[in-house]
Amino acid sequence: MRVVTITRGSIGPIAEVSVGATFRDRRELASAGIHRPFQAGISGVASTGAESIVLSGGYEDDLDLGDEIVYTGQGGNDLNTRRQVADQELTRGNAALKTSCELGLPVRVVRGSGADSPYAPRAGYRYDGLYRVESYWSRQGRSGFRVWQFKLVRMVEGRPPPLPEPVTEPPVAPPRVASTVQRIVRNSAAAQRVKALYRNRCQVCGEGVPTVDGSYYAEGAHIRPLGVPHNGPDHEANILCLCPNHHARLDYGGMVIGPDWGVRATDGTILGSLHRDSSHAIGIDYIEYRLSITRMPESGR
Amino acid sequence: MRVVTITRGSIGPIAEVSVGATFRDRRELASAGIHRPFQAGISGVASTGAESIVLSGGYEDDLDLGDEIVYTGQGGNDLNTRRQVADQELTRGNAALKTSCELGLPVRVVRGSGADSPYAPRAGYRYDGLYRVESYWSRQGRSGFRVWQFKLVRMVEGRPPPLPEPVTEPPVAPPRVASTVQRIVRNSAAAQRVKALYRNRCQVCGEGVPTVDGSYYAEGAHIRPLGVPHNGPDHEANILCLCPNHHARLDYGGMVIGPDWGVRATDGTILGSLHRDSSHAIGIDYIEYRLSITRMPESGR
Repeated sequence: MRVVTITRGSIGPIAEVSVGATFRDRRELASAGIHRPFQAGISGVASTGAESIVLSGGYEDDLDLGDEIVYTGQGGNDLNTRRQVADQELTRGNAALKTSCELGLPVRVVRGSGADSPYAPRAGYRYDGLYRVESYWSRQGRSGFRVWQFKLVRMVEGRPPPLPEPVTEPPVAPPRVASTVQRIVRNSAAAQRVKALYRNRCQVCGEGVPTVDGSYYAEGAHIRPLGVPHNGPDHEANILCLCPNHHARLDYGGMVIGPDWGVRATDGTILGSLHRDSSHAIGIDYIEYRLSITRMPESGR
Repeated sequence: MRVVTITRGSIGPIAEVSVGATFRDRRELASAGIHRPFQAGISGVASTGAESIVLSGGYEDDLDLGDEIVYTGQGGNDLNTRRQVADQELTRGNAALKTSCELGLPVRVVRGSGADSPYAPRAGYRYDGLYRVESYWSRQGRSGFRVWQFKLVRMVEGRPPPLPEPVTEPPVAPPRVASTVQRIVRNSAAAQRVKALYRNRCQVCGEGVPTVDGSYYAEGAHIRPLGVPHNGPDHEANILCLCPNHHARLDYGGMVIGPDWGVRATDGTILGSLHRDSSHAIGIDYIEYRLSITRMPESGR
């Protein structure tokens, strides 16, 4: 009898594997839990996001700047010539990377020796840590067929070691444009569950933000804020599913939610009543806490 | 004749001053351009944001965890007893910090020896680098009067040196909640000019997101994206003023803008026409570039 080990997929770091670890082949990579499939470059599904990708030179439109990667999605290429012979679809691994982008989930990145990249290892495969999918888009590839592309940026949380020196001349990155971070939206496992419950529709206006494939984007908003000094908990009772506009409006004090679930503007105007799913037990104490740190509308609560 | 040197206010780092630099007194701090006022804890105005703050122990509700600070705004305290004797208003320096929060602007942070903080220097003042205003809120302070508070988080861009070891026992920070960054919105000087032109109203829907003081929040969206591989320029011709919902919808491919300024959903439905100020010369080539990286609606452009 053959013993089959089922490796469950997981998002994020693998506890036993350091950044920079090397592997002889795809089988070793899979055994370590870094990248499960033996062939596919992307591991993961649309519902939960991508777990890992392997850069191995299968696509002519890839670009590797080390800490930043333009990764061409899967499909439409001839396995022998490695050329695009058909349009790519936003399905399978490509749809998984889209989910990773919209949820801000980390993706494990592996470079293989076959990659057309100055950062490729000389032999085998190297685990290079976690990257964030900053954006995705589709365009006509060099071949004339449509490809889906994903910009990945190396995450600095946990201060990973720098990548090994490039072995060939790295491409010259254009100078970065000076900008500051205006707003950071965070995600967590509990927030994902709340958003799923409302199918990414806002609990204030009922709207979601449509994306390219017709799915919706929404954000999880903590009622009692996370972190010092509020220390709100990250569980469903403390999280609302909001569109970006109502999330920003809540965070910047432009609306309040009362214990009667009434949503009011700062001038007291009633904007509506919070939509609540019967299985979503929102903590009234979190609502009260939020009210205590918000300037009240003139006309009562 | 007295020679008066006018130091113009500036946001961000001061080229000649390293993080960790120390100063004997407020006069030296002002001469160096780090913090201009001799008395006030906050330097800056509502229209452009806060330039710098000094932690010097003036407020009983401050909290200093080193890389994270809860900073109580100005006003309402008795200069002799340092106790709150009146409500604080969202004006002057407090309004400047609100602007810094909504624009994501860096604020120079200085710690003085008088601060009730384990990270205060033993004498004089120390420049501790740039912090971002993560959030703001108002609450009843310990005194019973309303205070405005600002959560500041140290910025890691440019990898500043770690803060000196605390000189007294630092407060125990509660464990951080595991979360990932779902979405990052960036700001730039050019984006600020475009947003000002539209008074923070969205060029698609005409709406802005109201904040606590009745002002509006909006975002600058680059038509041809910044950074590799698109390398769009950071100037007004390439930037739109959008509400967070339409910004996310543009980024995630849920709407397209045509060369006729028509805004369409991915199913071809017309959402409207882009509002354009006569002084805003939007680059049609950026619109064309964006179209080239967006999956088209079924029914034409």
